[in-house]
Amino acid sequence: MLHAMRRTVVALATLPLMLLAGSSGHGTETGSQVSYFTLANGLEVVVIPDRRTPVVTHMIWYRVGSADETPGKSGLAHFLEHLLFKGTKKNPQGLFSRTVATIGGAENAFTSSDYTAYFQRTTRDRLKLMMEFESDRMTGLVLTDDVVRPELKVVLEERNSRVENNPAARLAEQMEAALFLNHPYGRPVIGWRHEIEQLTREDAIAFYRRFYTPNNAILVVAGDVTAQEVRQLAEETYGQVPRVAEVKPRVRPQEPEQEAPRTITLSDPRVTQQSISRYYLVPSYTTGQKGMAETLDLMAHILGRGANSRLYQKLVVEAGIAVGAGASYYGTALDHTRITVYGAPRPGTSLAQIEEAIDATIAELIEKGVRQEELERARNRIIADFVYAQDNQSSLARWYGASLITGMSMEQIRTWQDRVRAVTADDIHNAARQWLDKRRSVTGYLIRQSGSRDDRS
Amino acid sequence: MLHAMRRTVVALATLPLMLLAGSSGHGTETGSQVSYFTLANGLEVVVIPDRRTPVVTHMIWYRVGSADETPGKSGLAHFLEHLLFKGTKKNPQGLFSRTVATIGGAENAFTSSDYTAYFQRTTRDRLKLMMEFESDRMTGLVLTDDVVRPELKVVLEERNSRVENNPAARLAEQMEAALFLNHPYGRPVIGWRHEIEQLTREDAIAFYRRFYTPNNAILVVAGDVTAQEVRQLAEETYGQVPRVAEVKPRVRPQEPEQEAPRTITLSDPRVTQQSISRYYLVPSYTTGQKGMAETLDLMAHILGRGANSRLYQKLVVEAGIAVGAGASYYGTALDHTRITVYGAPRPGTSLAQIEEAIDATIAELIEKGVRQEELERARNRIIADFVYAQDNQSSLARWYGASLITGMSMEQIRTWQDRVRAVTADDIHNAARQWLDKRRSVTGYLIRQSGSRDDRS
Repeated sequence: MLHAMRRTVVALATLPLMLLAGSSGHGTETGSQVSYFTLANGLEVVVIPDRRTPVVTHMIWYRVGSADETPGKSGLAHFLEHLLFKGTKKNPQGLFSRTVATIGGAENAFTSSDYTAYFQRTTRDRLKLMMEFESDRMTGLVLTDDVVRPELKVVLEERNSRVENNPAARLAEQMEAALFLNHPYGRPVIGWRHEIEQLTREDAIAFYRRFYTPNNAILVVAGDVTAQEVRQLAEETYGQVPRVAEVKPRVRPQEPEQEAPRTITLSDPRVTQQSISRYYLVPSYTTGQKGMAETLDLMAHILGRGANSRLYQKLVVEAGIAVGAGASYYGTALDHTRITVYGAPRPGTSLAQIEEAIDATIAELIEKGVRQEELERARNRIIADFVYAQDNQSSLARWYGASLITGMSMEQIRTWQDRVRAVTADDIHNAARQWLDKRRSVTGYLIRQSGSRDDRS
Repeated sequence: MLHAMRRTVVALATLPLMLLAGSSGHGTETGSQVSYFTLANGLEVVVIPDRRTPVVTHMIWYRVGSADETPGKSGLAHFLEHLLFKGTKKNPQGLFSRTVATIGGAENAFTSSDYTAYFQRTTRDRLKLMMEFESDRMTGLVLTDDVVRPELKVVLEERNSRVENNPAARLAEQMEAALFLNHPYGRPVIGWRHEIEQLTREDAIAFYRRFYTPNNAILVVAGDVTAQEVRQLAEETYGQVPRVAEVKPRVRPQEPEQEAPRTITLSDPRVTQQSISRYYLVPSYTTGQKGMAETLDLMAHILGRGANSRLYQKLVVEAGIAVGAGASYYGTALDHTRITVYGAPRPGTSLAQIEEAIDATIAELIEKGVRQEELERARNRIIADFVYAQDNQSSLARWYGASLITGMSMEQIRTWQDRVRAVTADDIHNAARQWLDKRRSVTGYLIRQSGSRDDRS
C-alpha cells in the first residue's frame, strides 16, 4: 500500500541530540553558505547548498504539533499528517507518493509536540516537481469521510503497535503525563485512544485551515542547488499560495512550581528487561537563558552519553549491576523539556539497587561538579557529532528545520558552537545544582509482572 | 473590609457526602414539596418550602467552574466570583453586601471545578430585594482596571494562605494534577499562581459574557415561601434578564486508561503531622451507571467513615499505629471523581507501616467483600445523614443546587434513597474489585523535612 511507503515518525520528544546543533562561525563549507529569506506570503525559506551529489532534500515544516491541539482532540496534528496524503483536486490521492516512488525518491513525514514536517529526497531536477506537489497540498487538501474514516483505523492500529503493545512506551506516555502538571507536552503526540476514536473530518479540516498556511511554515532545501535557484522555484510554486489564516503566537499553559517528586510504576507480564528511568523538567534551547541549554547538553553527555559516561562507568563497568545506563537531553523544544536518566538491572539486581546507584551518581555531580578533562571530552564529542551531522544532507535539513521551527534564530544556530565552547565546569556544576532537583522529576519503574496481579491493592 | 464578610469557599472537590443525597419518595415534608420550573429565558428554578421560621435561603448557581476554563487561564472562574462583588451600573460596589449586612442577613459565594454559586440568607420579606440585586449582577457587572487589579492581589494572597503556606494543601494540589492525566479536574480551582498573575480584566469580562446568562443558571430558594410566590418574584426580577449567550454542552477531555500507580512525596519542615493519602479515580453520581455512585458511597463509609469504619478500627483502635485513618467519596461531579483513603501515623510509626496496613485493609475488602450488618449500618448512617441535612435549610438548598448543576435530574434526586436501599453486599464487593485498583491511583506522602534537603538528589 502507498501508506507503507511513508514511515510516519512520531518524534515524541523531538530530535536526538546530534541534530540540536547549529552551524557555526567556525563552520564547514555547508554551514557557512546557508541562506535564509522570506517570500511575500510569509513563507520562510532556508537553503543549504551541498554540491557533492546531484540530490536534493526538500522539507516543509509547519508550526503545529500536538501541543497546539484543542484539549480533548489529542492526536489531531498527527492524524492530519496522515491525511495530507489523501490528495487534492489537482493531484488525486496517491499521485504524489507514486511519483516519488517512480522517480526513485524517498519521502517521509513526522509529527512532534511542536511541529509537523514533510520530506522528500530526489534528484536535483525533480525539485520543482516536489515543490509543485507540496505547495498544492498546503491549502488544497480534499477530505471526504471515505478517506478519513479508514485512516482513523490506521492511526489506531499505529497506536496499538507503537504504544499499547509496548510496556516501555506505555510507561513513557504515563510519565510524560505525570511530568507535565499543566503544559500540553503531557499529552501524547499520537493522542489518547479514546480521543483519537472521536476525531472527525470536520476536526481535521478546521485544524488544517487554522495552521496550514504559508505564513506558518518553513521550507528547507538542502542539496545541489543555489539560493537563487530555490528562491525562483519557491516563488513559482509556494509563492502562489495565498495566506489562508493569520496565526496567533504559540502561547501554551506553562508549568507551576514543581515541588513534589513523583513515581510511576508499570507492571506487565510482557516486560522482558526491567528498568528505571527518571525525567527532570529543565529549560530547552528556546526557554533557557543564554548558554543554559548548551550547558545541560554537556552535563547530560558527561552524566550519561556513551560508554565513557559516569552512569555507564559506575553502574555497568565498575559495579556490574546494570546492563545499560545513561542520560540524555532533548533540547529542541518551544517550551520546557526534560533530561532523562535511566538504568536497566542485570538479572539478580533489583531496581532499588539501580536507583540507589543512579542517585549516588547524581548526588556526586551536584556536590562536586565535573572535572575539566570530562568537560573537554564532552565538548569534543558534542562538536564532533555536530560536524558528522553536517555531513548528512537530510540531518542538516532536519536540524535547521527543527531549530527554526521551535523558535531559534539563524544567528543562534550559527553561534551554537561558540556558546558550547564558552561553557565552564562551574556552569555545569551550577546547572546540576539548579536543575537535577528531584522535586521537578518523575521516576518510572518498568516491572515484569509475574503470576497474579501484584500491582493492585 | 467588605471582602472579609464574604468567605469565599474554594470547594476543591465539591460537597461533603452528607449533601450528596436527594429527596426521596419516602421523604419528609420538605423533600416532597419541592417544585421545579423554568422561566422563559431559560433560568431553572427550584423552590424548597420550609415554613418553620420566616427566613429564606436564596442561591444562584452557574454552570461554570474551573474545569470550564481555557487552558492557561486557571483561576479565572474563581477570580470572576470575587469580581462579582464589584458592582453594577445600578448597584455600585459594596451596596449589595452592605444591604445584606444592614438587614442582618448572611452572604457567601463559592467556586468548584463544576460550578460557581452565590448565596444570601435573609428574612422572607427581603427575598425580592435579594433577587433584584442578584439578577442585576447576572449581566450588569461593571469592571474597571481600578477594581480588577487590587482583587488579583487578594486572590494571590488567598492562594498564599490556603495553599502555599499549607504543605498538606500543596500536596493535595499536586496529587490532583497527577491523578488526572488529561481531565481539567487536575487544575486547581484557585488556579496556578503564575497563571493567576496573568489574568486580566478582559479575560474576566469575556468569561463573564460567556457563562453568566439566565439559561446557564439555576435559582434555588429554600424557606418560608411558596412556589407560586417565588415564580412571581423570579419573573419580575430574573425574568427580565435576556439571554446574553448560548451555552455549549459541557464536554471536557476525559481520562485515558490509567494503568500505572503513581506516588508523590512532599517534604517540608512545616509539616507537623505526617500522613499518607491515596486518591482512586472512580465514577461520580453523574458518570456512574445506575446505583454505582450509591454503592461507592456505601463502600467508602464502610471502609473509612467514622470510628466504626474498618480503617479506623484496624489502624487506630486495634493496631494502635495511627492517630487517624479514614476514607471518603466525593460523588457530586460532572465527570469522574475520586475516593480518598488516608492514615496518619502515631509518633514512632513509619508511613510505610501505615501504607501496609491500609493496603491490607483494602485487599481484604477486595477479597472478601462486606458483611450484611456492615452494609445495614452504613445504609442507616448515610440515610440518617441525609435526613439531618434536610433539617438545615441552607444544606438542603445547597444539595439541590449542587446535584442539579452537576447533571442529576429532579427524578434522580427524588429516588436517591431507593437506590441506596437497593445496594447489596455483592454490589459493594464488585465495586471494590473494579474500582479500588491501584493502577488508577495516586499515593501521596506528606513528610516532615528535617535538616538538609533530603528530597533532592
